[in-house]
Amino acid sequence: MNVSSTGRFATRMEGVPRSFIREILKVAISPEVISFAGGLPNKELFPLEELQASAAKLMSGSDRNILQYANTEGYLPLREKIAERYARKGLKIDSKNILITNGSQQGLDLLGKIFINEGDAVLMEEPGYLGAIQAFSIFHPRFVTVPLTDEGIDAQILKQKINAENPCLAYLIPNFQNPSGISYTEERRREVAEICQGKPMFLVEDDPYGDIRFRGERKNSFYHYLPEQTILLGTFSKTVVPAFRMGWIVAPDDVMERLIIAKQAADLHTDYFTQRLVHQYLSDYNIDQHILQICRAYGKQAEAMISAIERYFPKEVMFTGPEGGMFLWLTLPEGQSAMKLFDLAIKENVAFVPGNPFYVGKTDVNTCRLNFSCSNESEIEVGICRLAKVLTRLG
Amino acid sequence: MNVSSTGRFATRMEGVPRSFIREILKVAISPEVISFAGGLPNKELFPLEELQASAAKLMSGSDRNILQYANTEGYLPLREKIAERYARKGLKIDSKNILITNGSQQGLDLLGKIFINEGDAVLMEEPGYLGAIQAFSIFHPRFVTVPLTDEGIDAQILKQKINAENPCLAYLIPNFQNPSGISYTEERRREVAEICQGKPMFLVEDDPYGDIRFRGERKNSFYHYLPEQTILLGTFSKTVVPAFRMGWIVAPDDVMERLIIAKQAADLHTDYFTQRLVHQYLSDYNIDQHILQICRAYGKQAEAMISAIERYFPKEVMFTGPEGGMFLWLTLPEGQSAMKLFDLAIKENVAFVPGNPFYVGKTDVNTCRLNFSCSNESEIEVGICRLAKVLTRLG
Repeated sequence: MNVSSTGRFATRMEGVPRSFIREILKVAISPEVISFAGGLPNKELFPLEELQASAAKLMSGSDRNILQYANTEGYLPLREKIAERYARKGLKIDSKNILITNGSQQGLDLLGKIFINEGDAVLMEEPGYLGAIQAFSIFHPRFVTVPLTDEGIDAQILKQKINAENPCLAYLIPNFQNPSGISYTEERRREVAEICQGKPMFLVEDDPYGDIRFRGERKNSFYHYLPEQTILLGTFSKTVVPAFRMGWIVAPDDVMERLIIAKQAADLHTDYFTQRLVHQYLSDYNIDQHILQICRAYGKQAEAMISAIERYFPKEVMFTGPEGGMFLWLTLPEGQSAMKLFDLAIKENVAFVPGNPFYVGKTDVNTCRLNFSCSNESEIEVGICRLAKVLTRLG
Repeated sequence: MNVSSTGRFATRMEGVPRSFIREILKVAISPEVISFAGGLPNKELFPLEELQASAAKLMSGSDRNILQYANTEGYLPLREKIAERYARKGLKIDSKNILITNGSQQGLDLLGKIFINEGDAVLMEEPGYLGAIQAFSIFHPRFVTVPLTDEGIDAQILKQKINAENPCLAYLIPNFQNPSGISYTEERRREVAEICQGKPMFLVEDDPYGDIRFRGERKNSFYHYLPEQTILLGTFSKTVVPAFRMGWIVAPDDVMERLIIAKQAADLHTDYFTQRLVHQYLSDYNIDQHILQICRAYGKQAEAMISAIERYFPKEVMFTGPEGGMFLWLTLPEGQSAMKLFDLAIKENVAFVPGNPFYVGKTDVNTCRLNFSCSNESEIEVGICRLAKVLTRLG
């Protein structure tokens, strides 16, 4: 038991990692710093004018219910639009199995609440998304990690760990994974589904970036292979705007029932005005057209980063070549420290995220996450140059 | 352990009450029903035009950051406005001790997370707010209840229970309590603060209705008497609009530190666009002027309900006389069933909430919550008449 000046705290919060990135970003706010550290979508691509028109239209109506309390599940026509978008990808999902959440982050909190008993095994990719590590940590699971390869999670190790550890959830990001940028091959997706089939567990497929594909072919969701055991997390944060905190979770009936109770206890419902606003935007504009613009821009930025890395970095530094999303991943030669690189890099006015927070229980790793969505092509070249200089000194 | 068709659920969700009101409202949606069951503010009083102008102004600026990810604590100028409003009530609160939440409901979830270990005592008013019962239930506390009197919580029983049960939190609504409508006298507030002083616990003062006072004098917050042990919950749901889910929590530094970690894990931050929108509204309009209108309207409606009750109800039915808020509370003669009354009332096209969900572990009570904020004066008279008819039959 923790003791404060007056009260006592729950043991639940012990060992929940603080946001490392939050701390890191504090040193990266100087305007001279070229930052590849953030995880933000590019604000220049926000559909500000369209949202402005949508808001004006929505609020000029006489329906005062847009400002009233609403149901916990979320605005049904918005959930229907989300179901339609899945249908166009070949996934048959009923709107009743969609719950609107405050970004997909809240989906993680709700899943932790309804699934994780203290000590339960939760399977994670290594490296894994730190927001999920944070959200699940509160419920004190036993994290079981399986390394990522260029084709996706290591299938053999996955099989071993599932058999040995009996996890209640496996949390995976098959498209343009955060932090690594890698995507699962179609073959690996099928294998993962096969391994999980019939086990008393759910596959949680988090897919914040799936629509932001700038090269290669779209792959199937785990839901395609294993609908009855797959829970999907989605969000408008990367395709519309993040400020709205508008995400969703897709789950089978019995899971949905518990999610709704947990959501109601957590905050009654997600901002209803914003739900209506996003629905208005989706009704009046072509979001796919908008997403295409994002893909073009991020694609060029990713290309700029990769070509600069190829030109300037020492050959021993490995990097991933993402087909979408917002990140790529560096692996320094064995024994080198990403944290040490960070300290040197900051002095050269370039920032990134050292890999540490993306691991459970590893503290001094040789990997780094680089974001390419928030810098233009020339900033990217300059930033990579600065980093190359530091890398050479480190080596 | 619960078993679903495929997965396993955490024991955490066992025993969390479903929303009784949610179920009840399903039978009360027919347009012929006069409903005193809801807990909604009156939508006719929403500042729709003002919010429309605020949104237009906010979005016509060139600041695309209004749509970007934001910090976990909340928009600082909004937190400063909240601090200013407290200052005008004589409470000195630093904006750094204010965290923006998704309504005060999320404040309850976050407090449950950081304070409640399984089996910890949590002290509640009886009857108590069902949203708090729901939110805390997830963390499996031992609820300890203390009855309300017309002057506030029973001070003697409070003292006994605190000494005997050592609660980590006492959750109280001193102004126009939900569900009872009663307010704590100034004397009772001082007594409660004295009883809690120095104990290893926090007083959680939930104050959604404090500004909606239509008669009597404003009383002091527990914060006035015991700032170091008081956590305040506030919301714009009743003074601006509920759809935004815009609330806040005021807590000392060490509590705030943990709340921020829990909030970040829960959903990163509250809808930032809406935070900016509420801030714009507060900057451009006089919210106190607006609140005055709400008070006038609800005051008349409360008066209409009380005078109709006095005229039509059997003398044996007791009722509270709220000085603000949205609810009053009926106590039927001993042995009568509020649920039975509800079943009969629905047939006469009038609805209310039977007291059951406001108690921990009592199932067939003789109390009822009546909402007066959503019906006009003539609807109120007709509804009370219908209820009087059923009451006479029940007696």
